[in-house]
Amino acid sequence: MTNVAPVCPIPASRHDTVMLAHGGGGRIMHDLLERLIVPTFHNPAMETRHDAAVVGVGDARIAFTTDSYVVSPYFFPGGDIGVLAVNGTVNDLAMAGARPVCLSAALILEEGCPMAAVERVVASMARSAEEAGVTIVTGDTKVVDRGKGDGIFVNTAGVGIVEQVDPIAPSQVRPGDAILVSGDLGRHGIAIMAAREGLAFETTIESDTAPLWSLVDSLLRANIPCHCLRDLTRGGLASALVEVAEAAGVPIEIDETRIPVCDQVRGACEMLGLDPAYVANEGRLVAFVPAADAERAVRAMRTHPAGRQACAIGTVTGDRQGVVTARTALGTLRYVDMFSGEQLPRIC
Amino acid sequence: MTNVAPVCPIPASRHDTVMLAHGGGGRIMHDLLERLIVPTFHNPAMETRHDAAVVGVGDARIAFTTDSYVVSPYFFPGGDIGVLAVNGTVNDLAMAGARPVCLSAALILEEGCPMAAVERVVASMARSAEEAGVTIVTGDTKVVDRGKGDGIFVNTAGVGIVEQVDPIAPSQVRPGDAILVSGDLGRHGIAIMAAREGLAFETTIESDTAPLWSLVDSLLRANIPCHCLRDLTRGGLASALVEVAEAAGVPIEIDETRIPVCDQVRGACEMLGLDPAYVANEGRLVAFVPAADAERAVRAMRTHPAGRQACAIGTVTGDRQGVVTARTALGTLRYVDMFSGEQLPRIC
Repeated sequence: MTNVAPVCPIPASRHDTVMLAHGGGGRIMHDLLERLIVPTFHNPAMETRHDAAVVGVGDARIAFTTDSYVVSPYFFPGGDIGVLAVNGTVNDLAMAGARPVCLSAALILEEGCPMAAVERVVASMARSAEEAGVTIVTGDTKVVDRGKGDGIFVNTAGVGIVEQVDPIAPSQVRPGDAILVSGDLGRHGIAIMAAREGLAFETTIESDTAPLWSLVDSLLRANIPCHCLRDLTRGGLASALVEVAEAAGVPIEIDETRIPVCDQVRGACEMLGLDPAYVANEGRLVAFVPAADAERAVRAMRTHPAGRQACAIGTVTGDRQGVVTARTALGTLRYVDMFSGEQLPRIC
Repeated sequence: MTNVAPVCPIPASRHDTVMLAHGGGGRIMHDLLERLIVPTFHNPAMETRHDAAVVGVGDARIAFTTDSYVVSPYFFPGGDIGVLAVNGTVNDLAMAGARPVCLSAALILEEGCPMAAVERVVASMARSAEEAGVTIVTGDTKVVDRGKGDGIFVNTAGVGIVEQVDPIAPSQVRPGDAILVSGDLGRHGIAIMAAREGLAFETTIESDTAPLWSLVDSLLRANIPCHCLRDLTRGGLASALVEVAEAAGVPIEIDETRIPVCDQVRGACEMLGLDPAYVANEGRLVAFVPAADAERAVRAMRTHPAGRQACAIGTVTGDRQGVVTARTALGTLRYVDMFSGEQLPRIC
């Protein structure tokens, strides 16, 4: 194996129209952001390529983030679009080491959507906000004509306070860092896929959607130097690792056999031909911490309900800049890249 | 005329499905918010019924707001959905007396939307942000399948700093306050209507979309005690006045003949059977200031390009709680209410 990353001889073409893959969390979406969004809005906060921007306001440092949710179906085992929207934004703040303070909630409703569904989603948002310790302080409602939306889309933005002194960002990742995940992977993606395609498994697989701030807080209060945190949403673990490796310019090696996946998700992935490392999660994170602190960090996470299956899965190595490799069960090493397009549209 | 507000003998029914009117800025939307959204998310910030929530973060007070934009068509004379999304959120912050600091930008794109349109909207957002003195620091992109969206929807959320000590909110409005508008009304609504329906007027009517923070700042720097500010978007001047009167529990009387409307907009409104007081604006505000400061306030606004046609149009009177009346050109007094449903869907 050489020290050169694989290069595709056919350049990724520019696309004249928007494709589903532009929202899929893979390489095509990444290219859209890198080619269009980041350069157009160029500023230091956006260029950190982090889940949330950290901005000074008066004497305080706040984190600020947003996500729209277009998940289909908007009710699914283990949650709904409202739960997802609250937890997703809470988690993006938490990944910057910020204690979530307040959220906005903006609904785009389609004419004809049952009002009972709207009421249920709004109630979910209120309950999830309470569970996560944040307040929904402002909002907006828009309605689009029938056939120009899909029931309910939700946008949440969030503001958090960063009390942590050292930045938590891809730029802080160092060779030698241990790479930890907080729990088993793939539940959210498989739950949505099953709900959408009407697949029946032996037991129902539920989304793992959960607020992660208190898990992050338990790491920070244990004085674990968290170099980088990332929640494993669209594109799953693999895409998150590639993003961090590319943003930080460091090589990452993981041990595929150590990635925790429950039997049901593994079975579903085998049946569907999916790699669990690419399946979306909504309540799982990856943490980059100094190797010397890895054991303490795993212990700290395991005290928390959302981190009971926390474990180390790899390390930041020293040679191939920006490349992720995985040691397979057979002992061979393979490159890990983002998938190019779309695994499952509208997963979140 | 009695001291009792008009009561409709037929109670407004609850609706089992979402109707376009639920996003129209009129009574039905207002009822949805009052019945469902505000009580479900109940907290002091949301109960101020203001364009932006004011929240303490460390030693600073920040304003926080969000709006989604679903305007159709997304390019129109005088602007596009991107300009609107930036200015709209900047203005909601300004209406709380907050200097806008940073924005988020979240796109929901429909599969098949021309990439050139996305690029143009994103460039508009960057340019508008620069003009308004804010930075777009974080964002999100989602794609929905063809037929489940409408080209481009944009959500912006914004954070501003409140340096102003006295709150600016409906609760601060007092009997005797003068009511000022910052310019002529109805341009945005008529521009959209003309673009959508292919109406041709003698000259093109352009949207008035503009960032209003520097106009507000010129009032604050002139030490004008701004009791309440409101931008005149969905539902126009009339709905904004009714909202403030109801939230503050004060009666408002305006002089219809003093509402500034340019000839083209007046002509279009006559042709279409519209009252300009209900037509949407995206760069106009109403200010409630003590009568003694009204002249100075008008002068301060007129020094600003967005306030050149500022004028006084009415006063907060003392008797009929929460009711808005308008003195007509014939000298009679009529009740002003929100329209019940929808004047023009997807105006913003």
